[in-house]
Amino acid sequence: MTSDLKTPAYLAKLRHSAEHVLTQAMHNLYGSNKIVMAMGPATGDGFYFDFDPSTSSGTIKISEGNFPEIEKEMWRIVNKAWPITKKSITVAEARKLFADNPYKQEWLDEIEQSGEEATVFWTGDQFVDLCKGPHVENTSEIKAFKLLSVAGAYWHGDEKKQMLTRIYGTAFASPEDLDKYLWMIEEAKKRDHKKLGKELDLFTFSDLVGAGLPLWTPKGTLLRNLLDGLVWQLRQEKGYQKVTIPHITRRALYEKSGHWAKYADDLFKIKTREGHEFAMKPMNCPHHTQIYAHLPRSYRDLPQRYAETTMVYRDEQTGELSGLSRVRCITQDDAHVFCRETQLEEEMLAIWDIIEKFYQACGFPELEVRLSLHDPAQMSKYLGVEADWQVWEDGLRRLVAKKKASCVEVPGEAAFYGPKIDFMAHDSLGREWQVATIQADRNMPKNFDLVCINEDGVEERIVMVHAAIMGSIERFVSILIEHTAGKFPFWLSPVQVKILPISEKHLAYAEEVKKKLQESDIRVELDDNNDTLSKKIRNAQREKVPYMLVLGDKEVESEQVAIRSRDEGKQEVLKLEEFIKKLKAENKV
Amino acid sequence: MTSDLKTPAYLAKLRHSAEHVLTQAMHNLYGSNKIVMAMGPATGDGFYFDFDPSTSSGTIKISEGNFPEIEKEMWRIVNKAWPITKKSITVAEARKLFADNPYKQEWLDEIEQSGEEATVFWTGDQFVDLCKGPHVENTSEIKAFKLLSVAGAYWHGDEKKQMLTRIYGTAFASPEDLDKYLWMIEEAKKRDHKKLGKELDLFTFSDLVGAGLPLWTPKGTLLRNLLDGLVWQLRQEKGYQKVTIPHITRRALYEKSGHWAKYADDLFKIKTREGHEFAMKPMNCPHHTQIYAHLPRSYRDLPQRYAETTMVYRDEQTGELSGLSRVRCITQDDAHVFCRETQLEEEMLAIWDIIEKFYQACGFPELEVRLSLHDPAQMSKYLGVEADWQVWEDGLRRLVAKKKASCVEVPGEAAFYGPKIDFMAHDSLGREWQVATIQADRNMPKNFDLVCINEDGVEERIVMVHAAIMGSIERFVSILIEHTAGKFPFWLSPVQVKILPISEKHLAYAEEVKKKLQESDIRVELDDNNDTLSKKIRNAQREKVPYMLVLGDKEVESEQVAIRSRDEGKQEVLKLEEFIKKLKAENKV
Repeated sequence: MTSDLKTPAYLAKLRHSAEHVLTQAMHNLYGSNKIVMAMGPATGDGFYFDFDPSTSSGTIKISEGNFPEIEKEMWRIVNKAWPITKKSITVAEARKLFADNPYKQEWLDEIEQSGEEATVFWTGDQFVDLCKGPHVENTSEIKAFKLLSVAGAYWHGDEKKQMLTRIYGTAFASPEDLDKYLWMIEEAKKRDHKKLGKELDLFTFSDLVGAGLPLWTPKGTLLRNLLDGLVWQLRQEKGYQKVTIPHITRRALYEKSGHWAKYADDLFKIKTREGHEFAMKPMNCPHHTQIYAHLPRSYRDLPQRYAETTMVYRDEQTGELSGLSRVRCITQDDAHVFCRETQLEEEMLAIWDIIEKFYQACGFPELEVRLSLHDPAQMSKYLGVEADWQVWEDGLRRLVAKKKASCVEVPGEAAFYGPKIDFMAHDSLGREWQVATIQADRNMPKNFDLVCINEDGVEERIVMVHAAIMGSIERFVSILIEHTAGKFPFWLSPVQVKILPISEKHLAYAEEVKKKLQESDIRVELDDNNDTLSKKIRNAQREKVPYMLVLGDKEVESEQVAIRSRDEGKQEVLKLEEFIKKLKAENKV
Repeated sequence: MTSDLKTPAYLAKLRHSAEHVLTQAMHNLYGSNKIVMAMGPATGDGFYFDFDPSTSSGTIKISEGNFPEIEKEMWRIVNKAWPITKKSITVAEARKLFADNPYKQEWLDEIEQSGEEATVFWTGDQFVDLCKGPHVENTSEIKAFKLLSVAGAYWHGDEKKQMLTRIYGTAFASPEDLDKYLWMIEEAKKRDHKKLGKELDLFTFSDLVGAGLPLWTPKGTLLRNLLDGLVWQLRQEKGYQKVTIPHITRRALYEKSGHWAKYADDLFKIKTREGHEFAMKPMNCPHHTQIYAHLPRSYRDLPQRYAETTMVYRDEQTGELSGLSRVRCITQDDAHVFCRETQLEEEMLAIWDIIEKFYQACGFPELEVRLSLHDPAQMSKYLGVEADWQVWEDGLRRLVAKKKASCVEVPGEAAFYGPKIDFMAHDSLGREWQVATIQADRNMPKNFDLVCINEDGVEERIVMVHAAIMGSIERFVSILIEHTAGKFPFWLSPVQVKILPISEKHLAYAEEVKKKLQESDIRVELDDNNDTLSKKIRNAQREKVPYMLVLGDKEVESEQVAIRSRDEGKQEVLKLEEFIKKLKAENKV
């Protein structure tokens, strides 16, 4: 039972009921004849409630200062242990019940048009709302809730419509779960990659360049390149080769691939001075097919495995941009394998292997597997016929079985050209992120007529595998920053060691230590500012440098280094050579 | 005197006179009342002559088959040793002289409008042409000439105008010079990077992607990355750091930098779905200024040295595109140094050092230096005032003096923001190419208000240095292919060693050799096709692989390798370990 109280389905019911309790409390406090409730759903991690603040007796202004009294009234209702019960009524009855509420009348117009019945939910006999449910059975099930914030929101999200007031909150089946959640959102604010990215000086934005277009500083670029270098190292071991393509193409390429019909709106489009229509690439697969196809290929040449880390572009709306999570310029660590059906499984397993090793090295030791399948009810979204999709999806199921991995199947999440194996990481705050993906694709090879000449001298249709390890470097870096709170693993730290000489007379030794560390390929910085030691330490701590070396008289004399570790906090004194040996071991991924 | 006969100025006169001789020969052969000459200039390496093939007595068709008789008639004229003399006449006289020639009448319209006198050149008293000259004094000075090809060309290059016939030729002051030139153009055809790039499978083009947008194969990408890797290695030694920017920007960035006013036509422009105006970047400096400017900088933080190999885009006309020499997508190995005036000289010398080392490693041991200066007559082309330019150019002169380098000064070749030191390489065919460049820039820092806080706590305007080593990777690779005829230096060869087992029974040993070479970081391929040895050798030769290892019974038994060198041709037998040692030494740049 306990675990049932944590399921998304139960929590959605609980939060929806908490929202009804909030609405009821608002009625009790501000008068049901004045306050006009508009709508209020459960969301992924809470609920919200919209009401119209302009009433006949003036505008109702709610701020976070009002939350204590609202929460008090909510507790009163919860503690009444009123049952929450559903009732089906006619639209005419409903219209009477909500006669003073133009928003509910609008909902009823919709219900009337759809020909459905209206349903209402009663809280005891005290409060009723037009609602499809579902809800928990009794208000007493709401063991923990909290109001979080207040904001303005347009009715139906339409800026031409009425501005409403929205109150956000959340609810859980236990106070412990609520506390954990509240800690998590506090912690998430501290770890916000936009805030930490600035503190660590990894990237910046410029008004002149434009929103959604990050500029990566030396440290941020180093971080990107270290991540990408590891992906490449793992790929190289599996026989991948790098290729290079431009960022634009004639529109014709996407007409042939099928992307133009699906995604034309999302593309940055270019009209040349000669009037030709070009587009910036939003993905790399169609370009890569042209490298495969430029030569006749024998079965002996397969698999061809092309890797390329390159930027793709999408015409995102300004309002949807956010830090590195949603950008217009996305760096993909992309790869495409062109192989025979008989080689497919081995190639996909090799990619799976790369994914496991990469996420292990980045501090995500466990990934969940999701099979993203077609939605049988919406075949028009996809290329190809359903019978083929079933065969392809069975192939992925066999692969998952071979890896002895547990997985969830999610219909409707496939790419338009084929089903996918998606990998989900959980960060240190318990949040789930979709990260890597492996996709088998028989549609693009058909559109581009990709073949090899097989053992019998006959043309054979080939298969393509799409496989990004990080997916988007921007998004992955944002996850990594928030997962580690900026304390990157040693091998990934842009600055691995910071040398802090206590005074000017220790500078010569500090330079010597710096040189020796650099010769051992350790990334090192020397803080030769005239600051106090404690300020130097604070600076290095803010930069989350894994090791600080404090160098004073004793260290100079004994040719040692006093080491403060970022993670362990304690100080240790070692011969420089021993320290370097330790770092070299730690630097291996 | 001999060397005077090789100067560009003398050759231009000589070739222009040869063109008059050609025109005279055409008159003599095809009748002056029929053939209507349009125009005929000297070019950089020869001359051409356009005539109107449609005459009152039908179309005159000239092919290369007619060249012997035309050349014979030209020799007759040359051997007459007629003087070539200039005469100024009125436009009215000229109109009479060329009464039947509508093209000359058009030239005369222009002359009349400009208010200038008309000048004609007489060859003896046999032939006259409307011409500004200059010419050699006597037809006998033309010691060597050759007609090269025939083609169609529109009058004034305008496709709406009359189609003319164009005959191309060249002339020299000695038969030896002509022979050398003819050998050079034959050799250049064989080395054409478009032809060799295909044979070596370095890059390809796709009609679907579009003209001027090369797709780089695995081998071509390896070549690019090896070149770029060397540039980065040299830069890293000088304290450069990599940064990363997107390929697009708001138009506002270029308005501020001054590029929009100068180059708007050459940009690929994008209008977003929200109606914002973006452009693809045709250069990287404005973006890089935004990374410098995102933090306050102390003099202690300078120089900031940013390096980035990234693609820039230019909306070139389709007709002007050619292989890798002229593309729409250009990969620049770009770098910008942000420093104080006092640091400028040292930074520029460091770049000069990188340039020398890089070109040495690529087989261009000697570079010529060109100072590209402002043109005092056209100050409107440049940012800033002339007095400043003179100071800046003197600075570059001092730098050249410090390097004890000889240099030529070329006014009018500066960038719009500052004078440049350009480096010119000569390839194995004697052709000159502009390659690297170092540019000091005080204008962009002014436009973007780039400063540092100096020792006195005061804002100080900084300087920028622009420095590409290869410039454009595409163009540099095209030069390198033609310079080396595809026989790249060992360290640059995409495949360094090709293993050719004589038969299947030598395959196991071949695999073993391959593994050992790979473990020593040698790029190796194994030809395990069922071809004859001689076919395998021919294939490896066509691919210009530096070393072929022929493995048969003898080699398997003795654990040796029989080595055929691409460059030396002879065969040598070595223990594998010795061969690996030799290769490792050769692999060092």
